[in-house]
Amino acid sequence: MLKFPFSKDYTLNYKEEWIDKRIQFLNQQCNTDLIHVRKFSYDSQKMIGNIENPIGCAQVPIGLSGPLTVNGAHAKGEFYIPLATTEGALVLACNIGMNLLSKSGGVNTMVLKDVVHVSPLFQVAGMENYSWFINWLDSHFEQIRIEAEKTTKYGKLLSIVPKMTSEGIIVTFSYSTGDAMGLNMIVKATHAAITYIADCTKTKFFLRSNFSSDKKISAYNYAYGYGKEIFAEATLPQKLFDDGKLNTTPKDVIANYHNARSGSIHAGMVGSNAHIANILAAIFIACGQDVAHITNCCAGITGFKLLSTGDLYCSLYIPGLLIGTVGGGVSLPTQKECLEILGCYGNGKAKKFAEIIAASALAAEVSISIALTNGSFVDAHEFLGRNRP
Amino acid sequence: MLKFPFSKDYTLNYKEEWIDKRIQFLNQQCNTDLIHVRKFSYDSQKMIGNIENPIGCAQVPIGLSGPLTVNGAHAKGEFYIPLATTEGALVLACNIGMNLLSKSGGVNTMVLKDVVHVSPLFQVAGMENYSWFINWLDSHFEQIRIEAEKTTKYGKLLSIVPKMTSEGIIVTFSYSTGDAMGLNMIVKATHAAITYIADCTKTKFFLRSNFSSDKKISAYNYAYGYGKEIFAEATLPQKLFDDGKLNTTPKDVIANYHNARSGSIHAGMVGSNAHIANILAAIFIACGQDVAHITNCCAGITGFKLLSTGDLYCSLYIPGLLIGTVGGGVSLPTQKECLEILGCYGNGKAKKFAEIIAASALAAEVSISIALTNGSFVDAHEFLGRNRP
Amino acid sequence: MLKFPFSKDYTLNYKEEWIDKRIQFLNQQCNTDLIHVRKFSYDSQKMIGNIENPIGCAQVPIGLSGPLTVNGAHAKGEFYIPLATTEGALVLACNIGMNLLSKSGGVNTMVLKDVVHVSPLFQVAGMENYSWFINWLDSHFEQIRIEAEKTTKYGKLLSIVPKMTSEGIIVTFSYSTGDAMGLNMIVKATHAAITYIADCTKTKFFLRSNFSSDKKISAYNYAYGYGKEIFAEATLPQKLFDDGKLNTTPKDVIANYHNARSGSIHAGMVGSNAHIANILAAIFIACGQDVAHITNCCAGITGFKLLSTGDLYCSLYIPGLLIGTVGGGVSLPTQKECLEILGCYGNGKAKKFAEIIAASALAAEVSISIALTNGSFVDAHEFLGRNRP
Amino acid sequence: MLKFPFSKDYTLNYKEEWIDKRIQFLNQQCNTDLIHVRKFSYDSQKMIGNIENPIGCAQVPIGLSGPLTVNGAHAKGEFYIPLATTEGALVLACNIGMNLLSKSGGVNTMVLKDVVHVSPLFQVAGMENYSWFINWLDSHFEQIRIEAEKTTKYGKLLSIVPKMTSEGIIVTFSYSTGDAMGLNMIVKATHAAITYIADCTKTKFFLRSNFSSDKKISAYNYAYGYGKEIFAEATLPQKLFDDGKLNTTPKDVIANYHNARSGSIHAGMVGSNAHIANILAAIFIACGQDVAHITNCCAGITGFKLLSTGDLYCSLYIPGLLIGTVGGGVSLPTQKECLEILGCYGNGKAKKFAEIIAASALAAEVSISIALTNGSFVDAHEFLGRNRP
Repeated sequence: MLKFPFSKDYTLNYKEEWIDKRIQFLNQQCNTDLIHVRKFSYDSQKMIGNIENPIGCAQVPIGLSGPLTVNGAHAKGEFYIPLATTEGALVLACNIGMNLLSKSGGVNTMVLKDVVHVSPLFQVAGMENYSWFINWLDSHFEQIRIEAEKTTKYGKLLSIVPKMTSEGIIVTFSYSTGDAMGLNMIVKATHAAITYIADCTKTKFFLRSNFSSDKKISAYNYAYGYGKEIFAEATLPQKLFDDGKLNTTPKDVIANYHNARSGSIHAGMVGSNAHIANILAAIFIACGQDVAHITNCCAGITGFKLLSTGDLYCSLYIPGLLIGTVGGGVSLPTQKECLEILGCYGNGKAKKFAEIIAASALAAEVSISIALTNGSFVDAHEFLGRNRP
Repeated sequence: MLKFPFSKDYTLNYKEEWIDKRIQFLNQQCNTDLIHVRKFSYDSQKMIGNIENPIGCAQVPIGLSGPLTVNGAHAKGEFYIPLATTEGALVLACNIGMNLLSKSGGVNTMVLKDVVHVSPLFQVAGMENYSWFINWLDSHFEQIRIEAEKTTKYGKLLSIVPKMTSEGIIVTFSYSTGDAMGLNMIVKATHAAITYIADCTKTKFFLRSNFSSDKKISAYNYAYGYGKEIFAEATLPQKLFDDGKLNTTPKDVIANYHNARSGSIHAGMVGSNAHIANILAAIFIACGQDVAHITNCCAGITGFKLLSTGDLYCSLYIPGLLIGTVGGGVSLPTQKECLEILGCYGNGKAKKFAEIIAASALAAEVSISIALTNGSFVDAHEFLGRNRP
Repeated sequence: MLKFPFSKDYTLNYKEEWIDKRIQFLNQQCNTDLIHVRKFSYDSQKMIGNIENPIGCAQVPIGLSGPLTVNGAHAKGEFYIPLATTEGALVLACNIGMNLLSKSGGVNTMVLKDVVHVSPLFQVAGMENYSWFINWLDSHFEQIRIEAEKTTKYGKLLSIVPKMTSEGIIVTFSYSTGDAMGLNMIVKATHAAITYIADCTKTKFFLRSNFSSDKKISAYNYAYGYGKEIFAEATLPQKLFDDGKLNTTPKDVIANYHNARSGSIHAGMVGSNAHIANILAAIFIACGQDVAHITNCCAGITGFKLLSTGDLYCSLYIPGLLIGTVGGGVSLPTQKECLEILGCYGNGKAKKFAEIIAASALAAEVSISIALTNGSFVDAHEFLGRNRP
Repeated sequence: MLKFPFSKDYTLNYKEEWIDKRIQFLNQQCNTDLIHVRKFSYDSQKMIGNIENPIGCAQVPIGLSGPLTVNGAHAKGEFYIPLATTEGALVLACNIGMNLLSKSGGVNTMVLKDVVHVSPLFQVAGMENYSWFINWLDSHFEQIRIEAEKTTKYGKLLSIVPKMTSEGIIVTFSYSTGDAMGLNMIVKATHAAITYIADCTKTKFFLRSNFSSDKKISAYNYAYGYGKEIFAEATLPQKLFDDGKLNTTPKDVIANYHNARSGSIHAGMVGSNAHIANILAAIFIACGQDVAHITNCCAGITGFKLLSTGDLYCSLYIPGLLIGTVGGGVSLPTQKECLEILGCYGNGKAKKFAEIIAASALAAEVSISIALTNGSFVDAHEFLGRNRP
């Protein structure tokens, strides 16, 4: 039997030679003839830290959407948004929305809150000890903060909040993480902090309790936030609809929207939107974000309102958007370039990036709402999704 | 001002020349120097149907995990799993889990249910009409089915279920979709069916009501399913832990698991797992799936149980996994190759693919459970996530 | 120390003499001077089967609301609704709503589904056994049904649905229960059925797994139903608002309603209504229902719609209403009389009763919507809730 | 046609004579012969403020459970708990649990948080105004607090938190309310506060937005709390099980508990418990609480843990328990007496009362867990629920 090519010399695995070995191994083992997976345009050493056992790259097509005018606190101007997806019609759909929103003066955006958290559990037994332990935490916050922040330049410990459970005390450590998504950062900081706490209090901990529902949907994350809480809005003037080209009316969009809200409520949906996960996934892949985090982000709430002027107000609220412009996958060559297209690579850019994402997602919501009311939804998917060579 | 390069001749946009135009446009407009995004290894015409306004590809590193032994109804044997991610340590973590599960005899898997649905709303007013309309639907199911299935070779209409709401009647059309993920297929089929219904009953419809919570999390999709309902299980023999190399015990894994369940319940999580979204996202990107669907899939339930033998039973239940081995992005070059690595490209492979995904996700759950109990979680992320050139 | 007066001769405990003993015991033990608790208007023997260790009765004031016109499939005509509550203003508020709805032609109501279930867990280990067991269930449904229905005159076993979990197989037994709420009935029937199954298959069971979320809120009960799924609707003509006495307009009611839907979605509410739990609780207490079941019932969805005529359409959907007109507390003297006021005591009345409840709850929704938009909400509670002797 | 007897002289409606008129009216109108409903043991004037259009009282049987030893911060000693219910076996079941817990040294209890809130919506349009408005709120908290607290002796405004939505800004006003349940109090206070805000900022408000999910279940109330957050715990020594009388073992109880947690998670339950709604409803009815609030309270989390000593630890966490010992229905004769049995009538008793409720609910959880594992559950309901005269 063939042996999987893996070198104990860690960095050796990233050499072209070792990548080739693995490709050959797969070709023999799986009877494949891998060609495209093996091709990528940069030095394989750059993959160190982002992947193990590399065999190459997935090439996910990037379509360009935009321009989208954003009037944010941090994102200001016209933006072209790279979307990495294989879902035909998505880029076009976004474009239609972005075009409409830009014609309408653009999207206002604002980051309302910015916090990420992790929640270890301490094996403290019994209410008497619970009380003692919680009091101890309260009176040692400053020391705990120092221990946590020793491990990080950018992370700031904002609060620690205990929750009594049958199994012990869950303690939620909340941080601001600057321009990094920050999950590794806060896990490391929290590990330092809880090691200190455990030493002082002679307790045992489990690093994660699932209470901070990373990459899952929960009431807690929905209510308290996980990442950047953000709001985006725009107003489509009635006259946009007047020439009949959109083949729908604000009133129909509103009717569709009320149906959708009702559908969401009857379904017991967390949040209520049409498909923001689509645009989040496409930007996340293009820009080197941790794609699994769209599970946390997808519970956004889209709103439409017919103004007394006849204009159509629309908004998108996202309780938690977990993104970063430093760290993670952002420095990989194509990912970096995509962030550069947005002017969002590096320090000081995370809120700008979040605002662009929210504005883009709002555009996608506007677009699908129009497509669902003017009948173009089926046609577009039919034409674009199937008109293949 | 520069004009965005877009040709009204649809296929022209996929020519290398037009891709170049867009790259140049971006370089001027955004002051970028795009090199890597522009590079991909195949004929740009292949992108038709999967993207619009292409500018190139995101290169997402693929790491190889496995081998993983799967004893499924459809997936049988050893598999190497390509994971496209930029999250350092994920591949390694999965590998540890896959290795353990394979040593333990592999993962049993079974697809329990396979259904996907879309839910238009009919603007029927008032209870009297509601009753009439619902009776009409009941007595015309066969004709409705025929209209729907005229549009598709593989889709089969299984049921139509009405739901009265203030806004009208939501009708959920449920289908089996063969080896395609099938969303476009069922939207098209449903459009045909509801056009027929509307003609016959003189009613107006909205194509989608959000009740079938595509790319969102909802009670309905969680309870009724959306995609493939699947179960995976394995039993880790106690002796795996005996030599101390894992540096943990079944008992500690169980303790961590009970803490996590408690954390999930206290958080009000939908489902309860550690991070299956990670592995779903990585396989979805590698294999050309609609990545936004991990929002529907992520509500899985992981279980551990200490058997009387001392062995550690583990399982993963996913209420709905929406995947396909034909259509969508699966024929793009790297995506097709990744499916070929799994022996899952093309017709007759969807259930096999689903079983491999579920088995891989279980491996990731086992791995993180061990890493969280033996202290290696922080170290691994620290070492792999930061040890960059 | 005093000894709690409890006779091992079961029925003796219901004698006046033993009730007195307990009252005296309490007076000594708790330093009370209990007078009113001890007083009730009927033979204490009637309490047998509904309470243990009786000391008397809670006297909950009953207010009369109505008349409410109901045009149901089962409830037809004008009804006066007895509401047992201590919340000042509730009866008056309902009255206002009932009066408006009756003036508008009354409330249409329809029971859409009627099912109640219980879900034992079988300790079956491993997927191979799971498959075998599930197949066994499938092929023995008829025998299982016979065993279940041997124990009951009215309960009918409709389906058994398995769910694989790490802990074993949860099997949901769904029943129709005639005019009884039926929980005791189905637990008994299910116990007989699973004893039979366990004998045949050599498996061990746990009687309840919590999957059928009796007296809790869950996605499953919300999506699948638990009790009677019911819909109620009415249309308030615009002219009702024209004389200005209501001091609000359909448009304001709609605005308040859209705000409330948005609030519900932002809160992550299960269902969306204003306060149907109030009216459910009041009718349940008056009419001898199991009050804890309002937790299952409270997830109703209220809808308002402005019709093109200017009239205001309103509706209430309740996914599951668990009530009965035989068994439980319905034969106790005041409870029986309250059901008689509604013409709902005894066999053949459960659906009628359900329709009256839903119509009443809709009236309460209409009432609060108007009170919240015309400013009377605070005044009414202020005046009625505090104007005490 | 008969006319409903209602006097415009408000207090006249509470005279015996007018109650009789309504009874006669009902007897004619509904063909009833009402006897028991009309009987109650106290001056009908006492009903003023708690009911309108009184016709009498529902007599709900009260059974005595206990004694239950509570070692709370506020509740200390042995308590007898009056339970008003018509569900046979409930009192007996609670008794078994209370007896076991008392033998085990009693229940430790602690109120962790105490807050109740209401969330009006301000019709502020557009992000610019949103920012301005939120800043205005921030800088005027003190004045807002003063306006709110002018209306109440006991209510204290703790915080105001804005939430941007498409419809306007939802502002959540959180209060402590002393010993009152406080809903009327905080609505009145909030009305004063928002009238002030609206005057100053020239905005329009809606008094309630449903975000503070009074009498409904929501993620927000679950995560943030609504009423008293409380924890109760006890440890059942192994030796309690040793003589075999309980006919079960800690291990079986734990197995049943893990099954139930799994069932809860698979069902998508909010919280996870067996039947705390039962005991909450029974105490609420007996003690004059607003019974509809059990919808908010029922999402408790029950936990069991097998200690290394072999003893069985159990706990109950309730995210929000909304109760009061002054105001509402607590001064009605039987209700007052029931609170007196607990030593919980009047000022300074709310936390004590909350602790007793939580301890009682834990007893009910322990009891049902044992009944479900030793087979007595079906028998008890069978015997007590049906052994009627």
